[in-house]
Amino acid sequence: MGQWAQALLGFPIAEPSDPVPLDAIDLPASRVAPPGTLDGLCSASKRDRVLHSYGRSYPDILRGFSGEYPRPPDLVARPRTEDDVAALLDWCGDAGFACVPFGGGTSVVSGVEAPEHPRGVVTMNLRGLDRVLEVDDVSRAARIQGGALGPVLNAQLADHGFELRCFPQSYKFSTLGGWIVTRAGGHYATVRTHVDDLVESVRMITPSGPFESRRLPGSGAGPSPDRMVLGSEGTLGIVTEAWMRVVRPPRFRASATVFFDAWDQAVAGLRAVSQAGLAPANCRLLDATEARINAVSARPTHTLLLGFESDDHPLDVWIARAVELAVAEGGVCPKGPRVRDSRADSGAAGSWRDAFFEGPYLRDVLISCGVIVDTFETACTWDRFPELDRLVRARVGAAMEELCGGGTMSCRVTHVYPDGPAPYYTFLAPASDGGALERWRAIKAEASDALIEAGGTITHHHAVGRMHRDHAHRQWPSAWPGVIQAVKDQLDPRGILNPGVLVPARSADR
Amino acid sequence: MGQWAQALLGFPIAEPSDPVPLDAIDLPASRVAPPGTLDGLCSASKRDRVLHSYGRSYPDILRGFSGEYPRPPDLVARPRTEDDVAALLDWCGDAGFACVPFGGGTSVVSGVEAPEHPRGVVTMNLRGLDRVLEVDDVSRAARIQGGALGPVLNAQLADHGFELRCFPQSYKFSTLGGWIVTRAGGHYATVRTHVDDLVESVRMITPSGPFESRRLPGSGAGPSPDRMVLGSEGTLGIVTEAWMRVVRPPRFRASATVFFDAWDQAVAGLRAVSQAGLAPANCRLLDATEARINAVSARPTHTLLLGFESDDHPLDVWIARAVELAVAEGGVCPKGPRVRDSRADSGAAGSWRDAFFEGPYLRDVLISCGVIVDTFETACTWDRFPELDRLVRARVGAAMEELCGGGTMSCRVTHVYPDGPAPYYTFLAPASDGGALERWRAIKAEASDALIEAGGTITHHHAVGRMHRDHAHRQWPSAWPGVIQAVKDQLDPRGILNPGVLVPARSADR
Repeated sequence: MGQWAQALLGFPIAEPSDPVPLDAIDLPASRVAPPGTLDGLCSASKRDRVLHSYGRSYPDILRGFSGEYPRPPDLVARPRTEDDVAALLDWCGDAGFACVPFGGGTSVVSGVEAPEHPRGVVTMNLRGLDRVLEVDDVSRAARIQGGALGPVLNAQLADHGFELRCFPQSYKFSTLGGWIVTRAGGHYATVRTHVDDLVESVRMITPSGPFESRRLPGSGAGPSPDRMVLGSEGTLGIVTEAWMRVVRPPRFRASATVFFDAWDQAVAGLRAVSQAGLAPANCRLLDATEARINAVSARPTHTLLLGFESDDHPLDVWIARAVELAVAEGGVCPKGPRVRDSRADSGAAGSWRDAFFEGPYLRDVLISCGVIVDTFETACTWDRFPELDRLVRARVGAAMEELCGGGTMSCRVTHVYPDGPAPYYTFLAPASDGGALERWRAIKAEASDALIEAGGTITHHHAVGRMHRDHAHRQWPSAWPGVIQAVKDQLDPRGILNPGVLVPARSADR
Repeated sequence: MGQWAQALLGFPIAEPSDPVPLDAIDLPASRVAPPGTLDGLCSASKRDRVLHSYGRSYPDILRGFSGEYPRPPDLVARPRTEDDVAALLDWCGDAGFACVPFGGGTSVVSGVEAPEHPRGVVTMNLRGLDRVLEVDDVSRAARIQGGALGPVLNAQLADHGFELRCFPQSYKFSTLGGWIVTRAGGHYATVRTHVDDLVESVRMITPSGPFESRRLPGSGAGPSPDRMVLGSEGTLGIVTEAWMRVVRPPRFRASATVFFDAWDQAVAGLRAVSQAGLAPANCRLLDATEARINAVSARPTHTLLLGFESDDHPLDVWIARAVELAVAEGGVCPKGPRVRDSRADSGAAGSWRDAFFEGPYLRDVLISCGVIVDTFETACTWDRFPELDRLVRARVGAAMEELCGGGTMSCRVTHVYPDGPAPYYTFLAPASDGGALERWRAIKAEASDALIEAGGTITHHHAVGRMHRDHAHRQWPSAWPGVIQAVKDQLDPRGILNPGVLVPARSADR
């Protein structure tokens, strides 16, 4: 591990260390005792409070590793039914506690940690709500509870011959409700890039009561209620169920790997494919560093992974045209397109898939070796991308150089649109000599400022949470935070839900 | 005309009558005089007030025809710049007048008429803002003013080799801003069914100031501000510009016409195509009556029109598979698919296009012949469609029989989704013996009730306005009207904009 990583990263790293054991962690005493009626759903155990203190951001992992838990939730509640959810919200509201909804806990934006609060914080773990309740074969839709992890819900859908094809990188460890409220990005690189378009209707329990939209394939009846739930990040209510659009698992697949010597040619090839209306499921560009780290390519070149999938028709024509477009911009596709009629997957796309899902967890090991490692992502229009890419690399590179004496940075484009790409950056820098958190904070600030200044979004699919809040406010219409607060005042009038996420907590809510 | 129509409709109709001439119309006196600074933008002429009194719904046409104008706007303002828009809003707010934004005036849901108001109503005609301001060739996007009619904006885009491919049936007479705030349905039958997905960013002038979203191809930074503007129907602000996703005009086209003897087979064929992931641009099913009226088919059969379009690649494979799927459900395609590499269009799809754009205006003539003629549309999931279709036809048919002694009803499906269709119904009934408006109202109420009771939406793309407001409230999450009002209170705190649309006007706003 150590030698491999050092060779890849180009700087020395420390041996992995072990996290501070649970026994050695000090927690402040819980301030909250549940009423008898809810006692059976609640735990104030040290283990539960520790495991619900953080998400999975770099500072989360770092603090968790070093045993710093100054502000755990006072209580962890595990509702088993929707009525439990409502009862817990009522209790929190009456008692003046904050409530933090918690799905898989994979937030990387400080979206699930307990906020500072004068009375107490109850974290609601929703994983008990994990059933597929109903499947509509004709409309290809399924009613699924919000607390189901990706593999848990797909195992149930498989019994009906369906699949929810939405594979965020956190897929194995995150929940449907979490995907919906954070507008998670799935594996589709085009068209259905976010979970948004897979939502047919949603049911959310708010402190003011149930909020349920009608099952509709499409509508034009005023502003869409679903679109206010999407991205609400646990500040308006708790998504207990949703009708989701499901599909038959793909039978036909086609894929190709195209290499480019020059980055601008690779971007041009990516753009050509994204504007051709072919709608590939996979259309990911890895820069040379990214391709090397993920072992997709041994060649020192930028790599475009193309893939199509269908349960209905062979995809020879689609992949042939996509490759043709990429090659016309200077790419080479030595092996040509590969077409399959089966459910097996192999080759570069397979290596990439493995690397993709393992990426976040490999990161944890690197952190224990004293490496600052983090990712951030954005989207911008094509006309702005060259300058955004340049600025982000320059600013983050300069910060790593100044603060850490160097570092490595890579880029992949995970999703594309006819009008622009969604690039995803990874940076790694040595920090085994201490001060990692402060260095990370300074590098992250440079990255976030650069994204906003260059015309990007502060997040394409990682969400806002508390971490990106100020930058989101710089990007939104100036009136938008006030609108969100007004909506929150309607649905969560006592301000108990996830205070500080999206908009600042009001002092009256604390 | 008369004989042709009678033969098609199956009931006798009167000779067309002429509308009451302008001279013979009585209007109440205007209650509003503009300040000197705005005088040059404003008109209180009889002609202007009459022409801005109504949209294009059945009751609008009927009342207009008979010279009934009891509540015209007091003043018509024509801003030439965004500053004019802001100045007019400020003035209305200060003086306590209501302001009704008016694009092309094609609303069929009472979205542009002057509401009852104690002080006065200023209708703001936005057609002076009709320029394409900027074109981004690389990202394929254009910044377009909100008051541009479809042909006006596309003529300007053509100079840059681009096209905004969004063709609502009102295309020639409606504006971009109107499409955005009503979530207009374009000609794409699948995927980009509404204008929603063509909006990259919007700029709206609200009574509280500009509301401008960032140009982004995609984002996950909280609830989307654009999605609150989409469907706001002039109640939150006035869309002065938007960055829209444009395309190269299609070079390749492929089309086919498939006939079905049985309606349930036709629906099965439609569903099969919609769930195959082929994304046809045209995928419209006309029932036998509709096909006959629109002269698409001389055969007494249900007709599925399929079409693909691309600026990038030939579409032989796409259309072949779509036809195969439809034929597998019992359809026949006697002429087979037609594939073209040119910009010309012909055949049934051409006849259909002509009939499509002329439909609303043919209607006006029929109304003058004493015929009740109206359309309504919805969307529902596939599992519910057979019962919705049955219920709607039964309820509307019974009402026409009881009130008019008979009538004709037809259905086309204009848009489709993997999880359901968007059917569009036309009904015609004789009423030359008087009482047309009351009869229409009773038939429309039956239709609207049936849609809601059967699990549909009150509108797929005609919008809510004042006409569908109560039914929209039955379909929305119960908290949604309160949320919309709370958003309105933020952006339009004095409640001057389009009172009564989406949510009831509050007495404090009048």
